[in-house]
Amino acid sequence: MKALVYHGPGKKSWEEKPKPTIKESTDAIIKISKTTICGTDLHIMKGDLPEVTDGRIIGHEGVGIIEEVGSAVSNFKKGDHVIISCITSCGKCEYCKKGMYSHCEKGGWILGYMIDGTQAEYVRIPYADNSLYHIPEGADEEALVMLSDILPTGFECGVLNGQVKPGDVVAIVGAGPIGIAALLTAQFYTPAEIIMIDIDVNRLNVATTFGATHTINSATENVVEKLMSLTNGKGVDTAIEAVGLPATFEMCEAIVGVGGHIANIGVHGKSVTLHMETLWSRNITITTRLVDTVTTPMLFKTVQSKKLDPKKLITHRFKLDQIIEAYDTFEHAAKEKALKVILTS
Amino acid sequence: MKALVYHGPGKKSWEEKPKPTIKESTDAIIKISKTTICGTDLHIMKGDLPEVTDGRIIGHEGVGIIEEVGSAVSNFKKGDHVIISCITSCGKCEYCKKGMYSHCEKGGWILGYMIDGTQAEYVRIPYADNSLYHIPEGADEEALVMLSDILPTGFECGVLNGQVKPGDVVAIVGAGPIGIAALLTAQFYTPAEIIMIDIDVNRLNVATTFGATHTINSATENVVEKLMSLTNGKGVDTAIEAVGLPATFEMCEAIVGVGGHIANIGVHGKSVTLHMETLWSRNITITTRLVDTVTTPMLFKTVQSKKLDPKKLITHRFKLDQIIEAYDTFEHAAKEKALKVILTS
Amino acid sequence: MKALVYHGPGKKSWEEKPKPTIKESTDAIIKISKTTICGTDLHIMKGDLPEVTDGRIIGHEGVGIIEEVGSAVSNFKKGDHVIISCITSCGKCEYCKKGMYSHCEKGGWILGYMIDGTQAEYVRIPYADNSLYHIPEGADEEALVMLSDILPTGFECGVLNGQVKPGDVVAIVGAGPIGIAALLTAQFYTPAEIIMIDIDVNRLNVATTFGATHTINSATENVVEKLMSLTNGKGVDTAIEAVGLPATFEMCEAIVGVGGHIANIGVHGKSVTLHMETLWSRNITITTRLVDTVTTPMLFKTVQSKKLDPKKLITHRFKLDQIIEAYDTFEHAAKEKALKVILTS
Amino acid sequence: MKALVYHGPGKKSWEEKPKPTIKESTDAIIKISKTTICGTDLHIMKGDLPEVTDGRIIGHEGVGIIEEVGSAVSNFKKGDHVIISCITSCGKCEYCKKGMYSHCEKGGWILGYMIDGTQAEYVRIPYADNSLYHIPEGADEEALVMLSDILPTGFECGVLNGQVKPGDVVAIVGAGPIGIAALLTAQFYTPAEIIMIDIDVNRLNVATTFGATHTINSATENVVEKLMSLTNGKGVDTAIEAVGLPATFEMCEAIVGVGGHIANIGVHGKSVTLHMETLWSRNITITTRLVDTVTTPMLFKTVQSKKLDPKKLITHRFKLDQIIEAYDTFEHAAKEKALKVILTS
Repeated sequence: MKALVYHGPGKKSWEEKPKPTIKESTDAIIKISKTTICGTDLHIMKGDLPEVTDGRIIGHEGVGIIEEVGSAVSNFKKGDHVIISCITSCGKCEYCKKGMYSHCEKGGWILGYMIDGTQAEYVRIPYADNSLYHIPEGADEEALVMLSDILPTGFECGVLNGQVKPGDVVAIVGAGPIGIAALLTAQFYTPAEIIMIDIDVNRLNVATTFGATHTINSATENVVEKLMSLTNGKGVDTAIEAVGLPATFEMCEAIVGVGGHIANIGVHGKSVTLHMETLWSRNITITTRLVDTVTTPMLFKTVQSKKLDPKKLITHRFKLDQIIEAYDTFEHAAKEKALKVILTS
Repeated sequence: MKALVYHGPGKKSWEEKPKPTIKESTDAIIKISKTTICGTDLHIMKGDLPEVTDGRIIGHEGVGIIEEVGSAVSNFKKGDHVIISCITSCGKCEYCKKGMYSHCEKGGWILGYMIDGTQAEYVRIPYADNSLYHIPEGADEEALVMLSDILPTGFECGVLNGQVKPGDVVAIVGAGPIGIAALLTAQFYTPAEIIMIDIDVNRLNVATTFGATHTINSATENVVEKLMSLTNGKGVDTAIEAVGLPATFEMCEAIVGVGGHIANIGVHGKSVTLHMETLWSRNITITTRLVDTVTTPMLFKTVQSKKLDPKKLITHRFKLDQIIEAYDTFEHAAKEKALKVILTS
Repeated sequence: MKALVYHGPGKKSWEEKPKPTIKESTDAIIKISKTTICGTDLHIMKGDLPEVTDGRIIGHEGVGIIEEVGSAVSNFKKGDHVIISCITSCGKCEYCKKGMYSHCEKGGWILGYMIDGTQAEYVRIPYADNSLYHIPEGADEEALVMLSDILPTGFECGVLNGQVKPGDVVAIVGAGPIGIAALLTAQFYTPAEIIMIDIDVNRLNVATTFGATHTINSATENVVEKLMSLTNGKGVDTAIEAVGLPATFEMCEAIVGVGGHIANIGVHGKSVTLHMETLWSRNITITTRLVDTVTTPMLFKTVQSKKLDPKKLITHRFKLDQIIEAYDTFEHAAKEKALKVILTS
Repeated sequence: MKALVYHGPGKKSWEEKPKPTIKESTDAIIKISKTTICGTDLHIMKGDLPEVTDGRIIGHEGVGIIEEVGSAVSNFKKGDHVIISCITSCGKCEYCKKGMYSHCEKGGWILGYMIDGTQAEYVRIPYADNSLYHIPEGADEEALVMLSDILPTGFECGVLNGQVKPGDVVAIVGAGPIGIAALLTAQFYTPAEIIMIDIDVNRLNVATTFGATHTINSATENVVEKLMSLTNGKGVDTAIEAVGLPATFEMCEAIVGVGGHIANIGVHGKSVTLHMETLWSRNITITTRLVDTVTTPMLFKTVQSKKLDPKKLITHRFKLDQIIEAYDTFEHAAKEKALKVILTS
């Protein structure tokens, strides 16, 4: 089969690889129908995650059709259409039983990272019963690719951890795909205001069409001043960090109101300065989380009932064998006005 | 009347001051029966809180007898014995209605700080109906002084915010009075282990007699190593910071397990380094809080039913007019083996 | 002044009464701008609440302008425009401090019941600081009358107690004003389906235009059968009882799924049969509640930000002195296709 | 092997049966070390559960040693000592993923009911990875038999669902084994008072030695009157029903205070009268639940850390082949002063 293979920093190719086979009785082999590229994949390609080894097939998102299941798989059978979760869950360790699949003792985030991933014609999914979700006939499969990672990430790490409530004022720092996923799912809880903060005018415009009530361009505006003027000096109920830099995290510290929440989604490579000299007395809650994908069934129901339209996130479409070109587009997201790209086999 | 008065950094005296009078219809005047000294009072005396002005009567804890009430006070009458809350709550602003009395628009922590306090023969308490609690006949009033501040602080900021549950492993960094208050009230939720961390051998010994299951002397032991060995490398469910220094906060970051809580109680004067490069993916919750004293009625019930014995915290007793001597003892807490001192009028 | 006065079962008149005056320093006198009639008022008029005495002015909803405040009132001043809460809260008893204003020791529901109410030119509101809410300039006051009672009732007793979540299936039994209030506010949480059940075709049609995804006419259809077919035999996540009869409560018992909620809003005059022989093992939660109106500020924010349009509930408008005619319309709600009527002074 | 076999109402025998074998790759075969008898087993023996068929081996509690595991079992291996959960959880259905193992699509309560159980020398446990718990070397295995059913049942259905908090007043109706399990685990949350209600003087005495602060003999005392006098007329915060009769459920309705909880544990065979005519306005929460055993790991930690001593529940000990005699003792629990009996192989 063909697959997108990492060969060290800066080197990738669409090349022939052996088709995966069942290794454990709990595995399934999936023929990929549609996949996508994640910001994390770009980090891998740059060499930022040195634990990814030469020869690894990248990708942790996608939908597909079951080709074969191991003898212990009971929820799925050949021919079933499925969503692949970016998180592998064994369903029987201490963390899985607590719903913290991200820290599954045998799984967690391993796909396209520690084991071969979904940017390929076929993929092996361990613990298939707990790591795949059924797609009913007639569903829009392209939209459902967004349930592999980006929507549960924005929802669980940003919206749920940020405890967004009706009538709240929410700020989202970062209007990239993950910030937009938080924007879309925050609306499940009917906040009064959602203020989107970014340096890219196009992304802020997109955010407005997706439900942001205000935008702040942090390249040209004083974020704290504008935010405080929008909130009568009170600050926000929830600040969602969707970038992963010290400066954007500290921005959240500066705009969160008394009793408020800072919900981190961003992947951070450096420590940040936490201003405990002011925050200690402000009744603040700060959360971090690697997505658990426990809310995938809930999100699926909101998609099926047309409360959430994940296709809004899709800006570009390619054939699977155009993946090198798709990477190029996604790497220049600002210029290309790209959010998520879809690759179809 | 006599009162303990602040006259600038390093200067205090027990001197004659006018007896307070009713200023607003919601005020009460209390004759102090018993009061105590808080670590914060020592900070004030050093000049660390420059907003405290020359002439201010210090102190925000105590029990007493109602001398007079304003016309709008309906919960209390002359002669009632009362606990004075360190937090003044108007009961009618946005924050009070949400149970966040610490940020009351007209109150919060003002006693012995922005207005005259309880280290005196009499004190004026604003918003008496929402800032005082009845003491029934026959109750041990000395014990109830601990409900003014230290027990709700340890309980709300440490134990409740830290979400301590049956079977949990809890670490408390700092075995001073506030850490001990957290230790006593954490036991309401029956954690499996409570590990106390301090540099003072005497305080660690006290902690053991008060229910700590393990102690670590951070002056002589490698805290992280010992902690990890006690928890099979998992870290703790809840780390309670009861010191207020960057080093102790970072210790909490290093020992908290996946899915765990860092509950800050300490008053911080400097920013701390938050290791988001490791914490971002560990599903951690960090909380800060100025005590709200919303749990004072709950704590009172635990004292009355003998589930909590606050007298354990009291190590020294003085007459109110020996307060200069009491400050001297409390300032040398380690040498004097002092936790809380009681001053009786 | 003129007021609507109860003179025993079946007897009411719009007659001259003395204008109310300040009795306690915490009182306010309000000039009524707009008021409405509640289903409970009809019960009072029938004599179903014998504790209501001859001569009582009825009504517990409305907006108005402050005419005068007592000396202890600090949140409001003459000329302020206010929403009157149907629940009076002293702000300083055990229940008010817990946010359970409905059981305030000195208040609760007393307005137009134990004390004179809002269907009059003026009304005295006790504990004004905790029982009134500011209306900012330019707000639509007619819409805000719905915040006095009906919207917090539907939201607190039905939606919050029923723990409605994104993707849920919710059934509301009763499409009268209160069921419609639950329908509108349930949408704050983006359930997948809201199934409205009633015997009145018109009300079901209205429900559909207000967001119900399905309707069942219980006069002509088998509710349990149809519900089970809509939910693949699973039953609903939340069943909201908005009628107050044994038959409708038992309908909720029959349609709630495993792990589900029955949230009662209806005022019941008789006991109901609880089928514990089937429910004991089904992990069900049943809640009752008298509205506390603690969510009035939250609801106000959703109205101001145009997430909720309470005017949808208003079907008829009268002048205040046409109140006898308004009662007549409201008593024949089905025939008149009435939900809420507005009376303007 | 030998096993206790049901042969229709009133008929049981300790007889030879084929030793169970692995049927599915997720099965384990356990050699029983210790088992016990549940009140439910008595109901089965009487014929109250007609779905139990002639020839069924009874029993759903016990500890044992793994004899053999199926090929898909990865958490356990031959020779491991294990606690057997009364609830079988597949770990991969919708309900298991939500932690509602009681309603597992392939499991739930089936052991000694729909499939052969633990009152035998060997038992087959389906979905072993999710239905067994490791016993570490040196643990007291007799005590751990109480973790199969009775302690999680008392804790989950009574204490957790009843939301017991520090300082609360809790009433438990029924001082049989399950009521006592609720009494022991309620103390995890440090309520101020636990009032035990029963008709058996011996059981009430036992309850007192196990931590009840008050007892009421409902055969000779007016429960409601006494309860109200103990609570200043307020009623209890939580009423736990641990009997399963209409009269005891209605007793809970009569003693629960405003804002309180009724947590049902009892297995009910008949409907009960729910007094909605008084309860509708009292902000009450009523819960039902079949034990999920999700808290078994938490309870295990409290046992290992000596916060909970389950051996208190054990009053009688027999050899496994004396099981007919053990049944006789347990059937006459009042006369024999029996709580739980232990059968050792």
